[in-house]
Amino acid sequence: MGQLRLSEIAAEVGCEWDGDEDPLISGAAGLTEAGSGDITFVADKKLLCHLSRTRAAAVVVHPDVDSPVPVLRTEDPYGVFARILARFAVPREHIFPPGIHPTALIDSSAILGRDLAVGPYAIIGPGARIGDGCALGAHVVVGPDVVMGQRCTLYPLAMVRERCILGNSVVLHSGAIIGTDGFGYLPAGDHLTKIPQIGIVELADQVEVGANSCIDRATTGKTYIGEGTKIDNLVQVGHNVTIGRNSAISAQTGISGSCRLGDEVTCGGQVGIADHVKIADGVKIAAKTGVFKDAQAGQTLFWYPAFEMRESFKMVATLRRLPEMMERLRKIEKQLGDRAEDDEESPC
Amino acid sequence: MGQLRLSEIAAEVGCEWDGDEDPLISGAAGLTEAGSGDITFVADKKLLCHLSRTRAAAVVVHPDVDSPVPVLRTEDPYGVFARILARFAVPREHIFPPGIHPTALIDSSAILGRDLAVGPYAIIGPGARIGDGCALGAHVVVGPDVVMGQRCTLYPLAMVRERCILGNSVVLHSGAIIGTDGFGYLPAGDHLTKIPQIGIVELADQVEVGANSCIDRATTGKTYIGEGTKIDNLVQVGHNVTIGRNSAISAQTGISGSCRLGDEVTCGGQVGIADHVKIADGVKIAAKTGVFKDAQAGQTLFWYPAFEMRESFKMVATLRRLPEMMERLRKIEKQLGDRAEDDEESPC
Amino acid sequence: MGQLRLSEIAAEVGCEWDGDEDPLISGAAGLTEAGSGDITFVADKKLLCHLSRTRAAAVVVHPDVDSPVPVLRTEDPYGVFARILARFAVPREHIFPPGIHPTALIDSSAILGRDLAVGPYAIIGPGARIGDGCALGAHVVVGPDVVMGQRCTLYPLAMVRERCILGNSVVLHSGAIIGTDGFGYLPAGDHLTKIPQIGIVELADQVEVGANSCIDRATTGKTYIGEGTKIDNLVQVGHNVTIGRNSAISAQTGISGSCRLGDEVTCGGQVGIADHVKIADGVKIAAKTGVFKDAQAGQTLFWYPAFEMRESFKMVATLRRLPEMMERLRKIEKQLGDRAEDDEESPC
Repeated sequence: MGQLRLSEIAAEVGCEWDGDEDPLISGAAGLTEAGSGDITFVADKKLLCHLSRTRAAAVVVHPDVDSPVPVLRTEDPYGVFARILARFAVPREHIFPPGIHPTALIDSSAILGRDLAVGPYAIIGPGARIGDGCALGAHVVVGPDVVMGQRCTLYPLAMVRERCILGNSVVLHSGAIIGTDGFGYLPAGDHLTKIPQIGIVELADQVEVGANSCIDRATTGKTYIGEGTKIDNLVQVGHNVTIGRNSAISAQTGISGSCRLGDEVTCGGQVGIADHVKIADGVKIAAKTGVFKDAQAGQTLFWYPAFEMRESFKMVATLRRLPEMMERLRKIEKQLGDRAEDDEESPC
Repeated sequence: MGQLRLSEIAAEVGCEWDGDEDPLISGAAGLTEAGSGDITFVADKKLLCHLSRTRAAAVVVHPDVDSPVPVLRTEDPYGVFARILARFAVPREHIFPPGIHPTALIDSSAILGRDLAVGPYAIIGPGARIGDGCALGAHVVVGPDVVMGQRCTLYPLAMVRERCILGNSVVLHSGAIIGTDGFGYLPAGDHLTKIPQIGIVELADQVEVGANSCIDRATTGKTYIGEGTKIDNLVQVGHNVTIGRNSAISAQTGISGSCRLGDEVTCGGQVGIADHVKIADGVKIAAKTGVFKDAQAGQTLFWYPAFEMRESFKMVATLRRLPEMMERLRKIEKQLGDRAEDDEESPC
Repeated sequence: MGQLRLSEIAAEVGCEWDGDEDPLISGAAGLTEAGSGDITFVADKKLLCHLSRTRAAAVVVHPDVDSPVPVLRTEDPYGVFARILARFAVPREHIFPPGIHPTALIDSSAILGRDLAVGPYAIIGPGARIGDGCALGAHVVVGPDVVMGQRCTLYPLAMVRERCILGNSVVLHSGAIIGTDGFGYLPAGDHLTKIPQIGIVELADQVEVGANSCIDRATTGKTYIGEGTKIDNLVQVGHNVTIGRNSAISAQTGISGSCRLGDEVTCGGQVGIADHVKIADGVKIAAKTGVFKDAQAGQTLFWYPAFEMRESFKMVATLRRLPEMMERLRKIEKQLGDRAEDDEESPC
């Protein structure tokens, strides 16, 4: 927030700047939407054509780019722009005012670090331990015996159930539910008997969990999300799942019980992974793919059911020609004096 | 609520009524479930056969229908019935008692309109502006600097994050999260650096957002939902998406970042749309369809990946005959003295 | 919680025990993760190979199994283990302290049973009736005129809207929303008119609803979930749906309006069922399947769109061979002196 000279921003992010003047920057925006006072960026050379018409006050560009407005020059325009964005974000203290709101209910047996922000009607249960610098928004519920590292951020209405563990700098968005029961039942005659879910969830350092996502506690042991892994909104992570480091799981993906995902796995939106499946490091899974089998390092999966993307692309391409293939088959059969009968059927 | 004579209902909705008596109506229900005192309707002529057995006190029908019970006559039986339903709904004031509950926490810098209903433990942040006649249920959280028009309805546990804008008569159902961070990261060595999401969400007049749905704030600029668009439960709308007017997005649909949907677009449930895709006005997308490419006006899409429905129906119909086609192909090859070897493979 | 001798556990679950010593058991865990003090189990004979390396203090096994550590013997090792798990779970009273928290807001017209646990900031609306032994966590919202049987458990931040009915021993996990509006609109010129949703939701005895799941109230009448049915996280159940007894609906499944599911139906994750579809007793639906048509007793469905699993497996298996089939078709045509032209197309 506030305003800075381009030269000040350049100093902060460690880039050179250039221009006829040193403009005052009051915001940041995309290239076509930027107004006066905004800084913008061009990372993709195909978009340079828009640069002549920009109303931005300044632009972050590659070193060799000519610009009608003052520039910051860098080999990584989007990365530098992202750092500038942070400069213009609403400060954390504005969203999470420092101190403990008088309506927050903190059990006397909880152990609190320093420099906390605990919002109105937030609840911290017995035996919980909250590290220094954590921010808990309004209506956040931290259950009994939860352990939380330093500088975690829990947006309003997030929930952590009993005994779960959060590392340092974990972020939970609103409505995220950590440690809800895994879905485990045993058939017992004509009904289903619940299998008690006595394990926990552990989120390592720098894990981020999106709004309204659910991470189930383990039946026994723990569901584990590795350091730096980012989880989008409305994602389901089943009991006893393990995910490695720096993976990225897009919205509405579902990971069934006991799956093991490696490091730097990427899932598009609405991916589904069946239970007990192992996904190796670095595997990429396209949006909406349904994975029923283990995936090896180097694989990119697509379709339902999932195949290596090269293969599924070919299958789908040929699929479009199926009605034509059928026609050609008929023609050959006719030529050979074979059958003819044929009724089209409805697809579903 | 309460009871009315059929003649009174007729006057309210501007229809003619007819019957041997003027029954007292105390509720509204479907044709086969209606009991004594209920009004029901028949819009579909195929269902007229049930009319002889109805226990309803009265029925809304097309002008030419014969009925054993008193009738309201109209060219639009379901439309008129829907208006009658409103007459028997629990009044808004019963769910959202007028006035500001003493436990609601309203920042002194917030600006409140008249005739508000603010429920227990609701929170209105600094700088927020709430229009006349808005109803905020229990535990609703309105973040700093949110602007809300007139007569909005936020059900309990809904959340609007800082700086977002709601038009008039916007409805947010319980657990809806407006303005949570977009899912944006940059690879930086082996880890992911968060791209600050400094934009907002704007919901235009008459937008309705279902329970536990998430609408992400823009990276910069705004995520925008146009006037009259209706969003069902558990829907994900990514950052910088724009949706036009009067579109209807069914449950569990996911719309990825930077998509642009036009006016009167219809999405069935569990639809997925990849990022940056453009969907023209009036496009219809069948349930569970996965859209990876732009769609033009007039299109109806189906399947994963999406094709024009006529084409995908044909493909799926032929698909069922694939094993048979394979058999016929083998037969021809045999006839021509060709190959034979063949091993069935498992599907996944 | 606490510690027991193996002999005490054996007496509780009614099994024989055997071993050189009678170990003190302080926890329960899976076979490979169990540490000293834990009891574990082996139900699958293929896993017996791990038994020689276990660090567990005792193991639940089939009667005929040899073990290096003390054993409980039973024909149903997992079932007995599940009962032992309950013995080591955090007691309900620890998560839901008995009594009514002074910050809970209970309308004076609500009728409360005995032995309740009502957490901080929980809200019970006018006319609500809460049966004996119910536990309502922090921030739970129970709307006006809700009726709840005995010994229900509502985790923090769960919500039940006005007039809905819960049987005995119903469990709602955090963020579950019961009775939100069905998604019903009528086109009216260029906009959509809301159809008031004046019905309710009824959950029968022993129903469990997962975190952040949504069950829509009926337009008129009721949405009904039968006795013993278990619903996982992030599930959508549309208005006027009926589900029978002891069905199991996995995470992120969506059931559209007016569907009727029978008893003991099983849905994998991310299943979608189109509106008005009827699913007979005992039908099994594989993960991610899209069901557009009624399913008969005995069916197992797979794929999108859904087919009987045997058929869809065959289709998918043949699908993999489509590019090869195309090649073989070309070869035949060439042999017969036919066409040749062919352009590969992109899949989407």
